[in-house]
Amino acid sequence: MHEIAPPLTPPVRTLMGPGPSDIHPRVLQALALPTIGHLDPYYLETMDRLQGMLRQVFKTKNQMTMAISGTGSAGMEACVHNLIEPGEGFLACVNGVFGGRMAEEARRAGAEVATIECPWGQVFSVAEIEEALHKHKPKVVGIVMAETSTGARQPLQEIADVVHDAGALLLVDAVTALGGILVEVDQWGIDAIYSGTQKCLSCPPGLAPISLNERAMEKIHARTTPCRSWYLDVSLLSNYWGSDRTYHHTAPINMTFALYEALRLILEEGLEGCFSRHQRHHQALKAGLTALGLKYAAQENFQLPMLNAVLIPEGLDDATIRGGLLKDFGIEIGGGLGVFKGKAWRIGLMGYAARAENVLKFLAALEQLLLRNGHSCSPGCSIAAANEVYSGCGV
Amino acid sequence: MHEIAPPLTPPVRTLMGPGPSDIHPRVLQALALPTIGHLDPYYLETMDRLQGMLRQVFKTKNQMTMAISGTGSAGMEACVHNLIEPGEGFLACVNGVFGGRMAEEARRAGAEVATIECPWGQVFSVAEIEEALHKHKPKVVGIVMAETSTGARQPLQEIADVVHDAGALLLVDAVTALGGILVEVDQWGIDAIYSGTQKCLSCPPGLAPISLNERAMEKIHARTTPCRSWYLDVSLLSNYWGSDRTYHHTAPINMTFALYEALRLILEEGLEGCFSRHQRHHQALKAGLTALGLKYAAQENFQLPMLNAVLIPEGLDDATIRGGLLKDFGIEIGGGLGVFKGKAWRIGLMGYAARAENVLKFLAALEQLLLRNGHSCSPGCSIAAANEVYSGCGV
Repeated sequence: MHEIAPPLTPPVRTLMGPGPSDIHPRVLQALALPTIGHLDPYYLETMDRLQGMLRQVFKTKNQMTMAISGTGSAGMEACVHNLIEPGEGFLACVNGVFGGRMAEEARRAGAEVATIECPWGQVFSVAEIEEALHKHKPKVVGIVMAETSTGARQPLQEIADVVHDAGALLLVDAVTALGGILVEVDQWGIDAIYSGTQKCLSCPPGLAPISLNERAMEKIHARTTPCRSWYLDVSLLSNYWGSDRTYHHTAPINMTFALYEALRLILEEGLEGCFSRHQRHHQALKAGLTALGLKYAAQENFQLPMLNAVLIPEGLDDATIRGGLLKDFGIEIGGGLGVFKGKAWRIGLMGYAARAENVLKFLAALEQLLLRNGHSCSPGCSIAAANEVYSGCGV
Repeated sequence: MHEIAPPLTPPVRTLMGPGPSDIHPRVLQALALPTIGHLDPYYLETMDRLQGMLRQVFKTKNQMTMAISGTGSAGMEACVHNLIEPGEGFLACVNGVFGGRMAEEARRAGAEVATIECPWGQVFSVAEIEEALHKHKPKVVGIVMAETSTGARQPLQEIADVVHDAGALLLVDAVTALGGILVEVDQWGIDAIYSGTQKCLSCPPGLAPISLNERAMEKIHARTTPCRSWYLDVSLLSNYWGSDRTYHHTAPINMTFALYEALRLILEEGLEGCFSRHQRHHQALKAGLTALGLKYAAQENFQLPMLNAVLIPEGLDDATIRGGLLKDFGIEIGGGLGVFKGKAWRIGLMGYAARAENVLKFLAALEQLLLRNGHSCSPGCSIAAANEVYSGCGV
């Protein structure tokens, strides 16, 4: 006889980790809309409209703006594998897990990979990248705009120019950035960019929005070897997302509905409003965490609003605190990755999760757990500090 | 200002194409359950239970049975890319689009690809495969169990033995087969197999169940080059799906919930009951289609119950009939692919779509459209023929 697993009864969590983030009820409703065919006229129209909204969020006119049928890492794999031919040079800027992952992806694609590194939590200067360009002469430079493992925000405004001057293409990881901070694909000269649905777009994981400009598409069309991935081959995918509508693979219909609704929510709020909301709640959270004596892992002035990585104070046990948040309060935050494993907490304020109620609930819960575990701080200090920020901006 | 796309208003369709198939309401409900983290204790428990149910549906004890974070084609890419190292021989058995796709995937993985072909709609004999094994000496043989482009059912029972005798591994495409006809992974000696959620599992597209036995895993662990795909690298994925739970990528949480519920529905019905239901409705559909004068594209005795590919009669226009079904009746069927483009219709009875009401509604609609377009048949003949089958089996 069969063994039938019990009915699903997932706990309701407040998702304040590095993703997935809290999902707006309208997005979950969209996810459960009736499935239709991937060549249904309504679905094709939906794809067009989705592309139109993605272009606005990426701030681009790029024709080749679409959603890859996999999670954020599939977006990275798609961009790297399409842009790189075996033997070509790839420069990866590594200051955390995801820069390292990009280097690994480029190796899998057959690239000659060079890396530049800077300490975790810090970001690269234009001069460092320029120097590496002259030394390694890569065809593609990969850099992470919002390092989810460290909470560092990499400025990009001047980087594209030096990359282009050196005859290379600029590939940007915006998995955590998109929807939470300004991403100017066209104005900054980004050639290729990818993201994921489960961060600041506040949609369940499962799709990876990407955008490629004409320069990137020219390189792809000029390939002399096929992309090593058939599933992620942009030259084939462009026939389905373009006017031909040639069948490639069956698209994740319901995830597309969810992303569509998530993008509607962002555009209804307006990108500027969305970014300033992330910034406001980040400031309140940071004030509270600072009052509790916690220090940020990322360098001052380059801290992401949506991913707050703080160092775990001496004497506190990572698992006890994170377990207490989850078990006693239903709040998920993330542990450290790589060199920060066991040493940092990653507190997300992504998309729909960036709300005052989340910030205040989290600070109240964390303060209680810290006091209970012998950490020294003044009771009530974190909420008072956060509220001071909120009253300053009229919340 | 932003241009916000209109609210989603997808039409309600009866999905009788080659997938996606009709979704049971319980599966859509599961899809919309609250998102939780990919390392949440409840999610890890859900993964274990999902694997337990997948093993029952695949009829295997394989530890490495899991869901790939992409659609069915990602399952194909995962299996091919993990099993093949550059320069190794891959034999693809091609009798339709998906055998051809497997050959292409193997080329992308760097394999030396040999193909054997048989006419579309026909299947391979053991002797043909044996001959090719001796000639090409491949490391991996890829074959499609249920060719979605032709509706042909490839018997597999004796193939594994000859493949193993020749020192190769057997890789099976069960995208359309799984959940609709018997798939005996362990008993038949299948080394690696993949499927998709959107066919007979009756779940939205977005995940690809796969299963690999010890022989396959040994080959993967013995690789001297890394898998060309990082996203689909089974040696990394096995650390997340295994007891280590090492983070690899963010899993598609809500799609996992949906697949979980879809598998519960199948096991509640029982595999045998599920297969005989597919067979019963196929017989009724076939009787109706035959009464209308339509001929199957696949050879007699090797026709799939869940994918009925029929040749479009002379004088009828493909787009007119399929468009009429969609527009006037809300019924989606598939057009032909490859050599069958414009020449065949593909009528799916997959999972929850395999119901008497679908068969009767479809036949009634098709008959009306055929008569309206000058096709000669006796009014009411298709329903009468289908009902005769149903009364014979007590429906």
